[in-house]
Amino acid sequence: MNSVVGCCDIGGSTLRVALADRNGNLLIKQSVPHARPSPEATMEQIARTLEELAQSAEAQMLGVGASAPGPLDHATGVIAFSPNLGWREVRFVEQLATRLHVPVALDDDANCAALGEQWCGIASGVRDFLYVIVGTGIGAGLILDGKIYRGAQGFAGELGHTTIIEDGPGCSCGNRGCLEALAAGPALVRLAKQVLAEGRASCLAPNDLNAREVMAAARAGDALAREIIQDAGRFLGIGLANVVNLLNPAIIAVGGGVALDAGELLLVPARRELKLRALSHAANAVQLVLATLGDDAGLVGAARLIWETLQRQASA
Amino acid sequence: MNSVVGCCDIGGSTLRVALADRNGNLLIKQSVPHARPSPEATMEQIARTLEELAQSAEAQMLGVGASAPGPLDHATGVIAFSPNLGWREVRFVEQLATRLHVPVALDDDANCAALGEQWCGIASGVRDFLYVIVGTGIGAGLILDGKIYRGAQGFAGELGHTTIIEDGPGCSCGNRGCLEALAAGPALVRLAKQVLAEGRASCLAPNDLNAREVMAAARAGDALAREIIQDAGRFLGIGLANVVNLLNPAIIAVGGGVALDAGELLLVPARRELKLRALSHAANAVQLVLATLGDDAGLVGAARLIWETLQRQASA
Repeated sequence: MNSVVGCCDIGGSTLRVALADRNGNLLIKQSVPHARPSPEATMEQIARTLEELAQSAEAQMLGVGASAPGPLDHATGVIAFSPNLGWREVRFVEQLATRLHVPVALDDDANCAALGEQWCGIASGVRDFLYVIVGTGIGAGLILDGKIYRGAQGFAGELGHTTIIEDGPGCSCGNRGCLEALAAGPALVRLAKQVLAEGRASCLAPNDLNAREVMAAARAGDALAREIIQDAGRFLGIGLANVVNLLNPAIIAVGGGVALDAGELLLVPARRELKLRALSHAANAVQLVLATLGDDAGLVGAARLIWETLQRQASA
Repeated sequence: MNSVVGCCDIGGSTLRVALADRNGNLLIKQSVPHARPSPEATMEQIARTLEELAQSAEAQMLGVGASAPGPLDHATGVIAFSPNLGWREVRFVEQLATRLHVPVALDDDANCAALGEQWCGIASGVRDFLYVIVGTGIGAGLILDGKIYRGAQGFAGELGHTTIIEDGPGCSCGNRGCLEALAAGPALVRLAKQVLAEGRASCLAPNDLNAREVMAAARAGDALAREIIQDAGRFLGIGLANVVNLLNPAIIAVGGGVALDAGELLLVPARRELKLRALSHAANAVQLVLATLGDDAGLVGAARLIWETLQRQASA
């Protein structure tokens, strides 16, 4: 019987579940749409799906790694409050372990994706790198000196809330001019609506507009949509230049729905701004690239997380 | 015969030399003014002074730790180019070790001061903290997960060149709106001259003005000088809020000539801005304080550096 681990990536609109081997290969995957489900229903779904997958693969599941939107406490396995899921005080690790009778490990989506890309993706074996999610929000997973860096209380990686424009647009966090308020999906939509209201010509329609449509219009050559994404890329470049000056990473891998959709449309202006602003030694040394595992980064990283936990437990 | 280490702190205008014991006590210290001396003259002075100090203390000097303005390569012990000293390609560690016949270790001033404060100062035993130098320039030493963090190529810690105002005043690095161009000593002087030229009343005279005079005027209650330092503190607070969001340190200790001179005049507005901008969990957890070892932080850190090197060599 093969030994595998289960892994899951709990997104705001999709739950993804898979089995993985010791090398980070996802052997079998399943996606389930879930719109703001209860913690109990989600854990039940994860447990049931993983048991079915393990049975059909005739594999023994040694443990489960989970990726979830933060903030959460990796050490205790508790999700204190996740705005994206609407969950509060969920003792995730304890409850899922009780259902499945195997060890469970939990980390936030940015850390899991960083771990995944470092294990099997663009940053394979790299000791100093950032995984940046640009989607509905902006966050970063930091791998420093070869390990996930979480900070004194586990709150590190809030790149989206670094200030880019002192008196810029208001952010969900209460601050002004945060990177997230200038370059994440909702910011693109807000900017597009604003410029459309000023009467600029565009193929975009202001009603029910979403970030995906702005991106599609930009790819189709719409000048207004291109400007909006270029501005977002420039702001992203300022934020990343600050990180490069502060941390001197070897690679910055950008993933998340908006970034994977926009691709080089976003990265070209970001790279240009980064080179302008970061000190030349560090700017020339860093690679700013799209993440390569795409949607799978979180699952692969969650698998890595639980393999490491199992190894630690075995050698303890 | 007591076993001690030698340590030196090579500043732009002063060379400081001391002997230290295993607990970071500076047993005997000496300061020598030196204005842009050659590397050879400086190393000769360090070697001679340390030998004299060790002889008068009847102590055996096991090694020497050195703090110098960067950028420099800690691993190879080479100072590639130090703008503050005007040195290029100085094989410092190799050459000083040849003169003194003991191991020598070298790191930049921010890293040494961080190490000193973590060993014997305000951040004693703290695993995640920043030492920020605010003087002629602005730089940071990062202690992450208990160790100095240097980045992929050793260029980490360039806090002074993170962008605060996209189209702000020009910086020596070629970028615009860097923290250093808004809050370091020369920026305070430039701002004061600018406002004085606009005819604002102040006890300051625009000729031969320096940062120390701006600070003295502020302490004496001069409104214009106070505004300038408050603005600098506010900009510092934005830069530090970005660091707090990204790295979630437990302590930020601020040292360097300008900060130690300005004290709370600079830190009060910085703290206020930090609390406004950083996410509340991380903002509430961090302490923003003045460094406690003052001018000695670099010497104590250099002593720590060489004690660690000697320990590693002994156990290898």
